Amino acid sequence: MNKEISIVIAGPRGKMGSEAVRMVTETPHFKLVAVIDSRNEGMKLKDVSGMPALDIPVYEDAPRCFSEIHPDVLIDLTKPDVGKIHLEQALEHNVRPVIGTTGFSDEDLERLKNLASERELGAIIAPNFAVGAVLMMKFAQMASRYLPDIEIIEKHHDQKLDAPSGTALKTAQLIREVRESKQQGHPDEREDIKGARGAELDGIRIHSIRLPGLVAHQEVVMGGEGQTLTIKHDSMNRASFMPGVKLAVEAVMNVDHLVYGLENIIE
Amino acid sequence: MNKEISIVIAGPRGKMGSEAVRMVTETPHFKLVAVIDSRNEGMKLKDVSGMPALDIPVYEDAPRCFSEIHPDVLIDLTKPDVGKIHLEQALEHNVRPVIGTTGFSDEDLERLKNLASERELGAIIAPNFAVGAVLMMKFAQMASRYLPDIEIIEKHHDQKLDAPSGTALKTAQLIREVRESKQQGHPDEREDIKGARGAELDGIRIHSIRLPGLVAHQEVVMGGEGQTLTIKHDSMNRASFMPGVKLAVEAVMNVDHLVYGLENIIE
Amino acid sequence: MNKEISIVIAGPRGKMGSEAVRMVTETPHFKLVAVIDSRNEGMKLKDVSGMPALDIPVYEDAPRCFSEIHPDVLIDLTKPDVGKIHLEQALEHNVRPVIGTTGFSDEDLERLKNLASERELGAIIAPNFAVGAVLMMKFAQMASRYLPDIEIIEKHHDQKLDAPSGTALKTAQLIREVRESKQQGHPDEREDIKGARGAELDGIRIHSIRLPGLVAHQEVVMGGEGQTLTIKHDSMNRASFMPGVKLAVEAVMNVDHLVYGLENIIE
Amino acid sequence: MNKEISIVIAGPRGKMGSEAVRMVTETPHFKLVAVIDSRNEGMKLKDVSGMPALDIPVYEDAPRCFSEIHPDVLIDLTKPDVGKIHLEQALEHNVRPVIGTTGFSDEDLERLKNLASERELGAIIAPNFAVGAVLMMKFAQMASRYLPDIEIIEKHHDQKLDAPSGTALKTAQLIREVRESKQQGHPDEREDIKGARGAELDGIRIHSIRLPGLVAHQEVVMGGEGQTLTIKHDSMNRASFMPGVKLAVEAVMNVDHLVYGLENIIE
Repeated sequence: MNKEISIVIAGPRGKMGSEAVRMVTETPHFKLVAVIDSRNEGMKLKDVSGMPALDIPVYEDAPRCFSEIHPDVLIDLTKPDVGKIHLEQALEHNVRPVIGTTGFSDEDLERLKNLASERELGAIIAPNFAVGAVLMMKFAQMASRYLPDIEIIEKHHDQKLDAPSGTALKTAQLIREVRESKQQGHPDEREDIKGARGAELDGIRIHSIRLPGLVAHQEVVMGGEGQTLTIKHDSMNRASFMPGVKLAVEAVMNVDHLVYGLENIIE
Repeated sequence: MNKEISIVIAGPRGKMGSEAVRMVTETPHFKLVAVIDSRNEGMKLKDVSGMPALDIPVYEDAPRCFSEIHPDVLIDLTKPDVGKIHLEQALEHNVRPVIGTTGFSDEDLERLKNLASERELGAIIAPNFAVGAVLMMKFAQMASRYLPDIEIIEKHHDQKLDAPSGTALKTAQLIREVRESKQQGHPDEREDIKGARGAELDGIRIHSIRLPGLVAHQEVVMGGEGQTLTIKHDSMNRASFMPGVKLAVEAVMNVDHLVYGLENIIE
Repeated sequence: MNKEISIVIAGPRGKMGSEAVRMVTETPHFKLVAVIDSRNEGMKLKDVSGMPALDIPVYEDAPRCFSEIHPDVLIDLTKPDVGKIHLEQALEHNVRPVIGTTGFSDEDLERLKNLASERELGAIIAPNFAVGAVLMMKFAQMASRYLPDIEIIEKHHDQKLDAPSGTALKTAQLIREVRESKQQGHPDEREDIKGARGAELDGIRIHSIRLPGLVAHQEVVMGGEGQTLTIKHDSMNRASFMPGVKLAVEAVMNVDHLVYGLENIIE
Repeated sequence: MNKEISIVIAGPRGKMGSEAVRMVTETPHFKLVAVIDSRNEGMKLKDVSGMPALDIPVYEDAPRCFSEIHPDVLIDLTKPDVGKIHLEQALEHNVRPVIGTTGFSDEDLERLKNLASERELGAIIAPNFAVGAVLMMKFAQMASRYLPDIEIIEKHHDQKLDAPSGTALKTAQLIREVRESKQQGHPDEREDIKGARGAELDGIRIHSIRLPGLVAHQEVVMGGEGQTLTIKHDSMNRASFMPGVKLAVEAVMNVDHLVYGLENIIE
C-alpha cells in the first residue's frame, strides 16, 4: 500500500505542466493540493480555463504557498530561472522539490546539494524525464562491462540537422565511464566508401540514419561471441515524460539529499 | 499437380552439390536420374561413399551422360571452367542447364544466350542462389520507385575486412537502375563526428556494423511521409541456397532463353 | 521527362483532400486545374478559406467541370456515395478517375469495369492509399512462393479492440492465394500456455501485440533453411497516403481499364 | 591493473571445459595452474590429446589438487553430482568455486551457503552462463517498474517442441517479482481468431514464433505513453558462455558468501 503524497505543481498551464496536472490527478496515491502559477492568484483551479474541475487554490507566490499548504512535494515545470528559485524556496520550507528545468551551473548544484543535505531533504533535478531513454542509456552502460563491443544506430526524421544525435553521444559517454577503451572491428578493416563504418568515439561506432517517416529512435547493439544484445528505444511523441515525473516524485520521498539526473534514481 | 522433372547433378560430392542431391531426392516432383562426377565412372551412386542409396549411374563424361540419359535439367555446382563447358554441352544435347558457377565473360554470355535462343531452350546462370537475399534486393528495387529515400544497414561479424558489403553495394546499384538520383537528408545537415551519416552512393546511405556474434544481416530502410518500410535478410549459414536451386530448376523448364541472375526469374 | 498531367480534385477541404491539394501543387509535372466542392460554386480556390492562393475555379457540378475544363485526371476523396457517382461521370466525360472512397458492390464494379473498357479509359479505385502497407503485402505474397513458412507479428496501441488487425488478415489472405496450404512448426509442438503459438490461418501464425506507445506496425517473418526474410511496415500517422495517390495518378494515365486496389498497379 | 587470479578447471576435455581452458589461457590476468580430470592422473596438460601445450599438472583427486596447488578459484564444468562434491571440497580447502552445473536442491543450497559464509569465502553457482540472456532478463525486470506494460516475443527454429520457451517463462517470472499484477490491453479487446493475443502469464503476453532459419532469439517489448523500450537477445551458438564464466571468476574474488545465479553478480 502506497502512502499518499501531497503535491504542488508549478507551471500548470504549460505543455509539460498540464500533462503533470492530469497525471497527478489520475494517480491514486498522489494528491494535488495547490498550483503555483505566474497569474490567477487567489482563484481556484477549476476557474482557470483549460484546467480540471478541482477546488484547490492557485498561488502566484511560492513561499506563501509552501507556508500555508505544507505539501510533501513540489513538481516544477516552469523555466530555468524560475525553477532554480523555486527549488531553493521549497527546501527552505521543508518541501521536497522535483525540478524539470535546466540551466544549473556547477556552483548552483554545489550550493543546493549542501542545502538539501543540511536539511536532510530529498530533491531531484531531471533535465530529461524520458524514462525509456534514460533506461536505455543506463542498461547500455551496465552491459558494456560484459559485452564491450558496441555500435549505436540512431534514426531520426530527415529534418534533423546534427549527427550523431545528442542521445547517441551521451550514451557513448556513459559507456566510456565504465568500459576500458578498445579498438573495435578487425584491425585491418577498410572502408571502400568513406564513412561506411560510421562515426567513432573511443572505439564505439555511431551510425545516424535520417529518413522521412522516422521520429526518434535509437538502438545500442552489443556483440559477444555467438550472441548480440540490443537495447532499443522508440519515441513517438512528448507524452512520454510523465512516467519519469511520477518516478521522481516517488523517489524524492525516499532520499535525503539532492540527486541530479533520472538515471541516478533508477534501481 | 507438378509434372516430374528428371535431373542430372554435376559435382555431387561438393558442399553445394551434396546438398543438392539431398534436395532433389526429397522433392516429390524432382527425380535424380544420374550424376556427373570427376571420378567414379561406371559406378552406381549408392556405391560412392557418403552418397544416398540410389541405383543411378555415375558419369565422368557429360556429353555421354546427356546422350544416354536424356534428362530434362542439368544442375551444375562444379567450378567456373567446368560449369561453362557443361552449360554448352547441355544445350547441345537439349538439356536445360541450371549453373551455379561464376566467371562468365560478356562474350561468353553473348554466345551462350544466342545458343539457348536458337535452340529455344531455357538456361539459368545464378552466381547467388540465396533466394532470401535476392528477394530483399528485388523488393528494395521495386519499392524505391514509391519510397525513394533509402538507407542500408548491413551487419556482419567483426572479422570481415571490407565495408560496405558486396550485397549492400549490389542493392544500391539495383536501386540506382530505377530510382532517379536524389540528395537525401536535410540539405544543411552536418556531421559533428565524421562518418556519422555513413557511406554515400548516389544519395543512398550505407552503414556497416561489425560486431562479434553477428553473422550476415542486412536491412534496407525506406522512408516516406509518416511511414517506413523495412526489408531485412538474416543469413545464418550456407544451407540457405537450396530453395534458390529448386526455384531455378522449376523456372528453367518454363523459359526458352538464357537468364542471368536469380532475380530475373522471381515473379 | 514526365508529361504534365492536368488534375481536378473533388473534396478539397477534407482531411485527405487538402493534403492532395498540397501534394498536387508541389509535384512538378502535376497541374491542379479546378476543384469540385459541395459549396463555393463560382469562387476561385484562393478565395476559399484555408486553401492555397491559386487562381483556379471551384465547381459544385462535376459534369460541368469536366465539360469546361477537360482535365486528364479526377482525384476523388469525398464520400462513398459521391465518389461512385463522380467515377461514372468522369468516365462519361473522358476523364480518368482516381477514387479513394469505399463501398463499391460487385455489381458496381462489374458495370464500371465495362464502362472503362468500352471507352478504353484508365480508372483506379483504391480503398487503401498507404503505399508502404500495400508494398509489404505484395512482397509477402511474392516471397511466400519461395519461403513458405510465415508468421505475422502486428503491433498496435493498447486501445485497439480487435485482434488480429485487418492488415494482418488481408496479408494472410493474399499469401493463401499463391501458397499451398501447409502445416507450420513441429508436428508435435505443444503450447504449455494456451495461445503461445498465436492465431492460425491456413497454417500461417499471427501474433497481436498491444502496448501503449505503439502506433501501427506489422512485420511478416518468412523462414527458410539458414535464413529469414522480414518485411516490416511502421506507420506513424495518416500523412502517409499521398505517395499512393501520386502513384495512382501516374498509373491511371497508362492503363485502359478499371483497376481495383493499389497492389495491382505496383510493378 | 587487475590482480592475477590462479585457476583450476575441472572437466577440461568437455565442450564447455575446453572452451574455458582456452578462455583462461587467453585472459591476461588469469593463470591456469592445474586441471581436474576424471582420468590422466599425473600427466601434464600438454600430454593430453587436444589440450594446449601447457606444463601444468592433471589431477584426478580434487582435494589433493587443492592441497598441493592452493589455487584462488575452481571453475567446475563437469556434471551435477560431481560439481556438487567439488564445490564443497573447494570451500573446505579455501578455494573459491565457480560451478556451472545444475541439480542443487534447496537443502544443498542452504548447507553450502552456510559453509561459504562461515569460511567467508565467495562461491558462485550459475546454471546459465549466457551473460547476454541474463542481462536481458535483469534489464526487463528493472524496466518493468517504470514501464509495466510488457509483451515477450520469442523466436526459435521450428524443431522446438515447447512454447513458450524456458527463457520467456523465466523472464516473465522475474518481472512478476517486482511488478504489481496488472491487466494489459484494452479491457474490451477481443480475439477474432483464438490465440492472437498470445499466452498470458500474470497479464504479460508471450508470443512464440517457430520458423526454419531461426536459432534462439527473444525480445521484451515494454510500452509507455509515447514510447517503447525493447530489449533483445540473439543467440547464434554455444560459444556465448565464456564471458559469463570470466565474469563469475572475477566476481567470486570479491564476495564472501555463496551467490546463486549470474544475475545476482551483475551490477
